[in-house]
Amino acid sequence: MNKRRPNLQVALDHSELHSALKAAVSVGHEVDIIEAGTVCLLQVGSQLVEILRGLFPDKTLVADTKCADAGGTVAKNNALCGANWMTCICSATLPTMKAARKAIQEINDKNGEIQVELYGDWTYEQAKTWLDAGISQVIYHQSRDALLEGKTWSEKDLDKIKKLINMGFRVSVTGGLDTENLELFRGLDIFTFIVGRGITEAPKPAEAAQEFKAEILRIWG
Amino acid sequence: MNKRRPNLQVALDHSELHSALKAAVSVGHEVDIIEAGTVCLLQVGSQLVEILRGLFPDKTLVADTKCADAGGTVAKNNALCGANWMTCICSATLPTMKAARKAIQEINDKNGEIQVELYGDWTYEQAKTWLDAGISQVIYHQSRDALLEGKTWSEKDLDKIKKLINMGFRVSVTGGLDTENLELFRGLDIFTFIVGRGITEAPKPAEAAQEFKAEILRIWG
Repeated sequence: MNKRRPNLQVALDHSELHSALKAAVSVGHEVDIIEAGTVCLLQVGSQLVEILRGLFPDKTLVADTKCADAGGTVAKNNALCGANWMTCICSATLPTMKAARKAIQEINDKNGEIQVELYGDWTYEQAKTWLDAGISQVIYHQSRDALLEGKTWSEKDLDKIKKLINMGFRVSVTGGLDTENLELFRGLDIFTFIVGRGITEAPKPAEAAQEFKAEILRIWG
Repeated sequence: MNKRRPNLQVALDHSELHSALKAAVSVGHEVDIIEAGTVCLLQVGSQLVEILRGLFPDKTLVADTKCADAGGTVAKNNALCGANWMTCICSATLPTMKAARKAIQEINDKNGEIQVELYGDWTYEQAKTWLDAGISQVIYHQSRDALLEGKTWSEKDLDKIKKLINMGFRVSVTGGLDTENLELFRGLDIFTFIVGRGITEAPKPAEAAQEFKAEILRIWG
């Protein structure tokens, strides 16, 4: 992964295993991080994580479980299939996040990580408790459904992202990203841009990923 | 389902399909509602819902997806497999819940329902917006991980449940329930008690379910 400029992560959010894998094969080698998306995990289960690990033995692989409970069990299940990182929803209790972190760290020889997915009304006080528990990655969203209702990235979003970065989080952003609007994030130390259909549904997915990378390179140098 | 006294729901929260199905076969006919649990869905996908529908064509079947995003897609996927109800996490945005409700209603001929899972710091203001969107079921939790840290049902929990019922919600409760502590809820118009391992890991699961039902009958008459 890049240290100085944002990483690019592809989200495989298909409802069918074959579509997710076709997308993975076409763009997996172009991106820094591969994500087994929630929709697909709920459809086909953790075989998705297992197959992706087999196809991409050296990539960072995220299981986007948005785990809300039974953190230890879900993290163990996914880490054993090959996930390096796993997501928890922000409304999960701290014991759930801690249990998830412990399990994914153990199985990944201390390199496993939990990312907190920010949806709804989380607070900075909550976020501080995640940091204190050793969880320093968050994912800032425009939800797919909010985007469908016409919402987009605003100054308010950017301010929140800045504040999280200043608190010490590595912040990934996702939701309606394209090569036009990456420019909105210029000057922010974004950890990762997560793109789903903007890459996987493009006429030429590998080229779409390359265009994102070129734009990241142009802005973050 | 019962109109006057609480329903009994079994949660199948196994990590393996065969264990979930063994439990389902042994207690499914004893309970009012069968739940395809989150841990199992994330492991084996929606085939769990499909198989349960085949085994229990007339039971109310819940897909406990704890959906946080892409509500329409997740609800459609699960409803097509046979789910009558589906859960959304409380931190999902309202557009996600609305999209999920629309999809599950369409496929279930208006009888589909969304249940909101209450974790973390939700507010009554948020809850009011769910009611206004036609979502009148919530699930009040003690999280499994919180229970492991020694937390249990308190007066504060019971007050919140009462307030939600008074707002007009049908409230299901879950987490660390046993035939001893159902008595705590006496006088409350609980919609459903959700029990997982308290039934499925009992030496005789069907008898355990019958004991829960007898206790519900004793208290709620």
